Amino acid sequence: MSKFHNLALTLAMESEEAAPFLAAADSARKNMALLTLAGLLEKSAARILAANRQDLAAAKKIGLSAAMRERLALNKDRITAMADGARKVATLPDPVGRILDGGVLPNGIRISRVRVPLGVILMIYESRPNVTVDAACLSLKSGNACILRGGREAVRSNRELGRLIALALKSAGLPEQSAQTVTIPDRELVTALLALDRHIDLVVPRGGKGLVETVMQGSRIPVLKHLEGVCHTYVDATADPGMAERIVLNGKLNRPSTCNATETLLAHRKVAAFLPGCLAALAAAGVEIRADEETEKIAKKAGIQTIPATEEDWRTEYNDLILSVKIVPDIDSAIHHVNSYGSGHTDAIVTRSLAAAERFKRDVDSSSVMVNVSTRLADGAEYGLGAEIGISTNKLHARGPVGLEGLTTYKWIVEGEGQIRE
Amino acid sequence: MSKFHNLALTLAMESEEAAPFLAAADSARKNMALLTLAGLLEKSAARILAANRQDLAAAKKIGLSAAMRERLALNKDRITAMADGARKVATLPDPVGRILDGGVLPNGIRISRVRVPLGVILMIYESRPNVTVDAACLSLKSGNACILRGGREAVRSNRELGRLIALALKSAGLPEQSAQTVTIPDRELVTALLALDRHIDLVVPRGGKGLVETVMQGSRIPVLKHLEGVCHTYVDATADPGMAERIVLNGKLNRPSTCNATETLLAHRKVAAFLPGCLAALAAAGVEIRADEETEKIAKKAGIQTIPATEEDWRTEYNDLILSVKIVPDIDSAIHHVNSYGSGHTDAIVTRSLAAAERFKRDVDSSSVMVNVSTRLADGAEYGLGAEIGISTNKLHARGPVGLEGLTTYKWIVEGEGQIRE
Repeated sequence: MSKFHNLALTLAMESEEAAPFLAAADSARKNMALLTLAGLLEKSAARILAANRQDLAAAKKIGLSAAMRERLALNKDRITAMADGARKVATLPDPVGRILDGGVLPNGIRISRVRVPLGVILMIYESRPNVTVDAACLSLKSGNACILRGGREAVRSNRELGRLIALALKSAGLPEQSAQTVTIPDRELVTALLALDRHIDLVVPRGGKGLVETVMQGSRIPVLKHLEGVCHTYVDATADPGMAERIVLNGKLNRPSTCNATETLLAHRKVAAFLPGCLAALAAAGVEIRADEETEKIAKKAGIQTIPATEEDWRTEYNDLILSVKIVPDIDSAIHHVNSYGSGHTDAIVTRSLAAAERFKRDVDSSSVMVNVSTRLADGAEYGLGAEIGISTNKLHARGPVGLEGLTTYKWIVEGEGQIRE
Repeated sequence: MSKFHNLALTLAMESEEAAPFLAAADSARKNMALLTLAGLLEKSAARILAANRQDLAAAKKIGLSAAMRERLALNKDRITAMADGARKVATLPDPVGRILDGGVLPNGIRISRVRVPLGVILMIYESRPNVTVDAACLSLKSGNACILRGGREAVRSNRELGRLIALALKSAGLPEQSAQTVTIPDRELVTALLALDRHIDLVVPRGGKGLVETVMQGSRIPVLKHLEGVCHTYVDATADPGMAERIVLNGKLNRPSTCNATETLLAHRKVAAFLPGCLAALAAAGVEIRADEETEKIAKKAGIQTIPATEEDWRTEYNDLILSVKIVPDIDSAIHHVNSYGSGHTDAIVTRSLAAAERFKRDVDSSSVMVNVSTRLADGAEYGLGAEIGISTNKLHARGPVGLEGLTTYKWIVEGEGQIRE
């Protein structure tokens, strides 16, 4: 057993003890803690920035890349954004206590399913210290105790933020242990925490695929995860060419590094005529096109350079200015391609055919299936969830964009006047 | 890699190929398969019973206990019950396609969450061959392909039942591979199947705690599980003594071997006067009472024999005519005991106090929290679910009694006319 087992167990059991207080807290109390935190963040900006400067200096010393340091860096604006985030969460409806369904059974018993918090949530994330505040706010509003394990490079910033979170909790009459910030950077502590499935109800890794896979492999606790987004836009035979081009360009170019960016364009053979213009626009925007043979021929005629797509390309999340393009003979092939090579994240069809739209919606097995909109719109904010825990590529519990509801479960409430089983 | 890896992969991939056909099948087609199966079961009774006799003979030869053989045995009545079960599932509402919520977003996009099947479900169960039919019917109705792995001692019965299931599927125009019966008894094949988290969406172990724990430990696939039921009945200070006794007796005696039987009675010190009568009735029914010191004294005065309860008793699911009994000073202690020692399954309070009922409902963290009814009523049929997959002790995805809905997930359907992300 790891030398961190006892420490992990103490952390988890302290969270477990705090959990019932959070579960029983009404919205007013939770919102008070959130608003207090917002104020504290702004008032303590100097201290937060001082701690962050120490993190940045240490990061430079160990040779962390400029991009990583940029993610680690806080400034006045980012602190204001954190405070505004806490205020925003305070305005959201409380998921706890919502009645999902219910009624009266033949024997007179009243039954209902009521949303309740999960209990203890472990958040594991990378360098951005603002996730500490964000994760604490989401856990708090959904009535869960949380253990916050941020990146080792952000330890000083996170310690300072954790202190303010504890202060805000205390001032609202909630246990300080409701949100515990782990500032021991040792990975073995994470491993030890991930083994505690009797004490921790959910792990939420927030970060790159490497982090998510490490957590998945090491965890005995259920993981709410985002693994990858290999998203497709399929341009059907009947698509409006202008709309198709707009949707494809937005899907690829709006923010190529995101999980809901389009990675593969599938075009029906009949709309091959739309391709040269669309590919030219993509190439002009700096997109590298990895094409199947048929697309390559069309591109060549139009003087657009392509690279031959390999089998691996169809499975790849580029997160970059790269698009794989394939011509398909019919919608069946398109759907088959999406279900075989995609990641079940977000896939769109562009079409004017009602039958094609219905087929695509029914048969594509993805968390978001779209008709005539950009894959980039698959997002908690766009879907009106208010807050986004992340986009889940799980099929169970929560699928696709996840709001506060994803941090809750339900219990059955059963009430009678002495009914027994006959 | 296990020598069964390739076989497991073939099974899983055949199920994966069948899954889209099931997902797209309308209720009429699925019900046709169910009703055809019911008819086939009755017509083929002689063949089923012949196969079952061979299983029974083999079971006797290897020295299987009489109780195990009784569970393995089929007869005309049990076959009729299987057929009726299939007909019952045909009458249930189809969970697939149900719209959970939806609306129009500010940018004019229409969004909805729609129930869809999970895909491929692996059912792992023990000796009773009727589970083969039951599991196939529930998977089929919920639009899922399934792999059915029954007990090794029921291989011949299951092979015959599997043949009829395949026939029924085929006659309804569904792929025979929609429900695949595994009749290779080797455990390594199960291990190999449990590793295929890329191809199988859910594992449902149906059987004792040993089976469930083995599956949990070996699985990389999410497990819908019932682990244990350490259920409490708490008799509050204000309880009606007659009602309390009726509920406690029913909770313990109605069917002691079930997961929702009451295992621990917690009594408020103020109702200690109710105890002698209740304990006498329990003792008269053959219940062994494991008592804390205070209960012991009361029982002794009334001439009722008890055994001192150990720390272990409070955590034990007896599934037998044994009840642990503890006197508590207040409702806080009762709730704390339930949350500390219980299994989060089903817990009841008997009370006339509104405040006590509200406290108990809010603070007990169990899948079913009951007021003035017997714990034995926690059950899919009692809750009106129509069919029961099982009672889940998971907090995520499905909690407590699980109906067909538990074998589904949802997808987001997003429709517009060219909207993009700005």
